[in-house]
Amino acid sequence: MTGEKRIAGIELGGTKIVCGIATGAGDVLQRTSIPTRGPEETLIDIKNWLEPRLDDTIGVGIATFGPVYVDPASPRYGHIGATPKTAWRDFDLLRAIREWTELPLVLDTDVNAAALAEIRWGAANGHRNVVYVTVGTGIGGGIVSNGRAVHGLMHPEIGHMKPRRLPDDDLDGMCPFHGDCFEGLAAGPAIGTRWGKPLNELPADHPAYAMEADYLGQLAVNLLLTASPTKLIFGGGVMKCTELLPMIRDAAARHLNGYLDFAALGIGLEELIVTPGLESNAGLLGAAALVIDAS
Amino acid sequence: MTGEKRIAGIELGGTKIVCGIATGAGDVLQRTSIPTRGPEETLIDIKNWLEPRLDDTIGVGIATFGPVYVDPASPRYGHIGATPKTAWRDFDLLRAIREWTELPLVLDTDVNAAALAEIRWGAANGHRNVVYVTVGTGIGGGIVSNGRAVHGLMHPEIGHMKPRRLPDDDLDGMCPFHGDCFEGLAAGPAIGTRWGKPLNELPADHPAYAMEADYLGQLAVNLLLTASPTKLIFGGGVMKCTELLPMIRDAAARHLNGYLDFAALGIGLEELIVTPGLESNAGLLGAAALVIDAS
Repeated sequence: MTGEKRIAGIELGGTKIVCGIATGAGDVLQRTSIPTRGPEETLIDIKNWLEPRLDDTIGVGIATFGPVYVDPASPRYGHIGATPKTAWRDFDLLRAIREWTELPLVLDTDVNAAALAEIRWGAANGHRNVVYVTVGTGIGGGIVSNGRAVHGLMHPEIGHMKPRRLPDDDLDGMCPFHGDCFEGLAAGPAIGTRWGKPLNELPADHPAYAMEADYLGQLAVNLLLTASPTKLIFGGGVMKCTELLPMIRDAAARHLNGYLDFAALGIGLEELIVTPGLESNAGLLGAAALVIDAS
Repeated sequence: MTGEKRIAGIELGGTKIVCGIATGAGDVLQRTSIPTRGPEETLIDIKNWLEPRLDDTIGVGIATFGPVYVDPASPRYGHIGATPKTAWRDFDLLRAIREWTELPLVLDTDVNAAALAEIRWGAANGHRNVVYVTVGTGIGGGIVSNGRAVHGLMHPEIGHMKPRRLPDDDLDGMCPFHGDCFEGLAAGPAIGTRWGKPLNELPADHPAYAMEADYLGQLAVNLLLTASPTKLIFGGGVMKCTELLPMIRDAAARHLNGYLDFAALGIGLEELIVTPGLESNAGLLGAAALVIDAS
């Protein structure tokens, strides 16, 4: 029965917006992609595409870049927070969509939504404690605990924790807030600035890989020791370098130094730390998952 | 009605075990304290005190030091894991208690239980996203997300994340697994080794305080950026030095560097980072809270 429902989804990313109609079975029936510009003009494009397609849908899921206020009890619910995309700062995203539809609206971060979609249809199917990390122009993460996305004061912002710096890394770090946090040292812009090229244009034995894997391995350890997931998914543009994933597992094992007894737990790092099961539709399906989970 | 229930609780600590009978209103009716020795002899003492007092109780809550297997679906559920207390390693705690009672048994880490008790009767009353950190002979933490204790692969082991080392700290670190993780650098034994005295025997302007506050401030940041709690509670023996708490808040603010917009969130660090509301009965009440939450 769930499979027959139709759900509208909006995935707001820093460079593009994906809108679509999905089914409860995780099939994408229609989709479009819109370049991200200022909020007013972008929202007009979203409305023009989506509004005529809402007739048979049960709700609109919105999976957005953060920071965003996700607490429905907050007067700022649905507002974008202090993003580097300054035109979007304080923009009341939820209200802008509410202007043209009475359907239920459910909003969360893109990464919390992706974690829920991976649980429903992807690499974490059936799991209840899952972390989804994206490594791209930034580093973000969604956390699902006991089957529900983690919210509270805000939402997870895992990319702004700080790793131990590697001694041979002299990059100051690219984060405007923290310099050398995980995002500042290991997201795409840090790789590009440090080595002059993106990772996928460097050979797999280039020291860039070992450094990237070490930082992401440290991040994996922090996540295993806080959220205690049974699936830890690494996605995003940087992870398209497929050599990286096994190196991250090795780095995580090195930093854990035997503290988690994987033999006793009956699981290996190969099962625990994985890449996404959903490809380019992950964000859109994440938006749909928000509506299904709330209905 | 909840208040009239009687619940048995067992808090297993590294140096002592507290057993007691509590009410659903959070009152402790009877309690005793037993020194922790090997598991067999300690369990006999627990049985001798508790078994005759179980008649009117609805269940037995067990709040234990970790690591402990907390997944009821695991064949190791209720076993102690790789603890430095070697006599307890692999001990089947739950089975040892099951031998003398048919009552419902609910088990969790001492710190997850303490977080639930603080939510029910203490400093986090009514909150749904809470972290409870204890800084004593080790550093542990319980996490409650959406009202439920965080479990998964294991349970949170936040003390084994690694902080950025301070340049004037030449301690190798005391953790047998990781050396200079948070526990290795900032728990009681690290303070004692580094300065030759516990914190409470040093003057408040001693550099030990600033160093301790910086490490715990970094830990606070990692927890705010993952679990996103609306209450972050610091308890344990080291926190009895009351000068420390405001210094931890300052250190957290310094490391966050404006990333969380507390003005927009309508909360100050004074409300967010606090000490426990429950005193010496926190563990015992935590054990009782486990039974109430499960019933």
